[in-house]
Amino acid sequence: MYKLLKKDGNARRGELTTVHGTVQTPVFMNVGTVGAIKGAVSTEDLESIGTQIELSNTYHLHVRPGDEVIKKMGGLHKFMSWNKPILTDSGGFQVFSLAGLRKIKEEGVYFNSHIDGRKIFMGPEQSMQIQSNIASTIAMAFDECPSSVAERSYIEASVARTTRWLKRCKDEMARLNALPDTINKHQMLFGINQGGVYSDIRIEHAKVIREMDLDGYAVGGLAVGESHEEMYRVLDDVVPYLPEDKPIYLMGVGTPENILEGVDRGVDFFDCVYPARNGRHGNAYTNHGKMNLLNAKYELDDRPIEEGCQCPACRRYSRAYIRHLLKAKEMLALRLMVTHNLYFYNTMMSEIRDAIDADRFKEYKKAKIEGMRAGEE
Amino acid sequence: MYKLLKKDGNARRGELTTVHGTVQTPVFMNVGTVGAIKGAVSTEDLESIGTQIELSNTYHLHVRPGDEVIKKMGGLHKFMSWNKPILTDSGGFQVFSLAGLRKIKEEGVYFNSHIDGRKIFMGPEQSMQIQSNIASTIAMAFDECPSSVAERSYIEASVARTTRWLKRCKDEMARLNALPDTINKHQMLFGINQGGVYSDIRIEHAKVIREMDLDGYAVGGLAVGESHEEMYRVLDDVVPYLPEDKPIYLMGVGTPENILEGVDRGVDFFDCVYPARNGRHGNAYTNHGKMNLLNAKYELDDRPIEEGCQCPACRRYSRAYIRHLLKAKEMLALRLMVTHNLYFYNTMMSEIRDAIDADRFKEYKKAKIEGMRAGEE
Repeated sequence: MYKLLKKDGNARRGELTTVHGTVQTPVFMNVGTVGAIKGAVSTEDLESIGTQIELSNTYHLHVRPGDEVIKKMGGLHKFMSWNKPILTDSGGFQVFSLAGLRKIKEEGVYFNSHIDGRKIFMGPEQSMQIQSNIASTIAMAFDECPSSVAERSYIEASVARTTRWLKRCKDEMARLNALPDTINKHQMLFGINQGGVYSDIRIEHAKVIREMDLDGYAVGGLAVGESHEEMYRVLDDVVPYLPEDKPIYLMGVGTPENILEGVDRGVDFFDCVYPARNGRHGNAYTNHGKMNLLNAKYELDDRPIEEGCQCPACRRYSRAYIRHLLKAKEMLALRLMVTHNLYFYNTMMSEIRDAIDADRFKEYKKAKIEGMRAGEE
Repeated sequence: MYKLLKKDGNARRGELTTVHGTVQTPVFMNVGTVGAIKGAVSTEDLESIGTQIELSNTYHLHVRPGDEVIKKMGGLHKFMSWNKPILTDSGGFQVFSLAGLRKIKEEGVYFNSHIDGRKIFMGPEQSMQIQSNIASTIAMAFDECPSSVAERSYIEASVARTTRWLKRCKDEMARLNALPDTINKHQMLFGINQGGVYSDIRIEHAKVIREMDLDGYAVGGLAVGESHEEMYRVLDDVVPYLPEDKPIYLMGVGTPENILEGVDRGVDFFDCVYPARNGRHGNAYTNHGKMNLLNAKYELDDRPIEEGCQCPACRRYSRAYIRHLLKAKEMLALRLMVTHNLYFYNTMMSEIRDAIDADRFKEYKKAKIEGMRAGEE
């Protein structure tokens, strides 16, 4: 149940109440692909850095350990020891990007597991069943995610099929939530708006899916090839056609600046692998832009990554030490980097919420972006 | 300053007071080779699992980040954020086992760095200088560590040189501790007894080095090729010739059973990479023997690694979850495994100390070994 608390321009301050607790929005979801955050970050760590909601990947969990295993273990919350909300994607994106895709048909998608090559079929019903077994708080609809810059004719046909699939997802989720042995009988379903960079297709699609009265709406298929400016234009065009009383989720986005621009256009939920991936490559996010700890100038630098930062890495360890660990390929380096970066993202979202509450989001956004751009290495 | 508190048979209960705090013995040192524990275990974690003293490797720190860097950063304690005692080895063992050894001469050892191949010379003076820069609590003497089963004639010549090197170490350490810019002016020096499996050589060597009145004495060159029974025999033979008022350290040992046997023969300090290395391979230490979490029978096992264990892994995560993370090669698996194993070792040492205090070490040892043997997978 989403409640819009207030608006500041198009930026929205809200809260989503779920069976696993309430999420204050806008929010950044921390990505734990296989039911664990990359970089040896534990769920205890997540609690200590202000994580409100975790995202796991349905495809990965389906192939290993298997969603049936997770169901037998009482669902993903119990399995990974995390009692706050979890969102699962539909599995579709990974099938298209990671697995050996064989064929898209009306009934669903045929592909090969990236683990053992075994043939798998996944359609809307299968995706819902898997997510129901995982028992996430929020399930995502099964859609096709074509390249955002694909041909118009391809996108049109794909979006029409995604709409047909969405109806099947909704029906299947209703059926599953009513079954006696379903773990989370209040599992939410978010629909996904598609249409590439073609705003008219996106708007038509938004009009159709908003009528389906889903628990939330995502804008999918962006940040996969088009420019940032095109992504912002699509958001400008399509978000007004999504229902104001439902949460809006911009999938797979992005940099801190992308998120600020998304919030400015009415987006509530974000997720991205950047904090973890950049951390693993020695890149730390700060209010003065990204810095690369592998840089020789940090060899004798006894300051924390960011002065004043209250994350577990900055409270205790120096740039020089983390740089040494990165160069020695010591795992603790990755844990400290990822922890810092997730803390940076989570803290920025908290600042964003405070700024909207205080009707000063535009000033906050401008100052934050200028600060980050000024110091970018 | 070592204080022998009481004996129970040959098992010794003592404490070593240092400038970085007091260590209750017998103790197991947790190994943090490059200034960090393998498996992304942080110094905060070490504090939470009862670690009293950490061991780092001089050779590794000398080649990266460089002991001069560590000195500029205020010493290893400050660099890695650990304020309890640290023991550094001499660098000799790694030179002989890991680096590209070129030549052993009277003045020291010529070798190539395993990082960049650069030629390095290390003799007793260099080892002391490096360890003084690192500013560990306890420095180890620079010795040769030949195979324990090498020819008698080789061992004899090697031990004689190790004795000459030990005198140079002691002189150099005294000089360094008196320098105005030395970080730890109370750095302790432990000598190392060598002699392979030849007890008469070991005893003669022990008689010589005990006269040098060092801060502690190690038995080195064991657990590198000989059987466990030979190792125990050597300890039976040589420990009585080491001074009772100094701590005794059995280097690089070993399994829980090895440690119990070592304590039973008067040893106070131990170190070993097994808890970390076994953890990385899915092997967990328990009171019922080692278990391998990769075993299929743990797929749906919702119990902790060891029921009743109070380590951060067992308090929160199941065998099934850790097994999944191990199979997915997720870094968190290694952190949880290593944390559990170090906690097991640290807890066993605490139990050993309690047993000696209560004059029931023999019973404790017997029950512990029987329990571990009974359940070993």
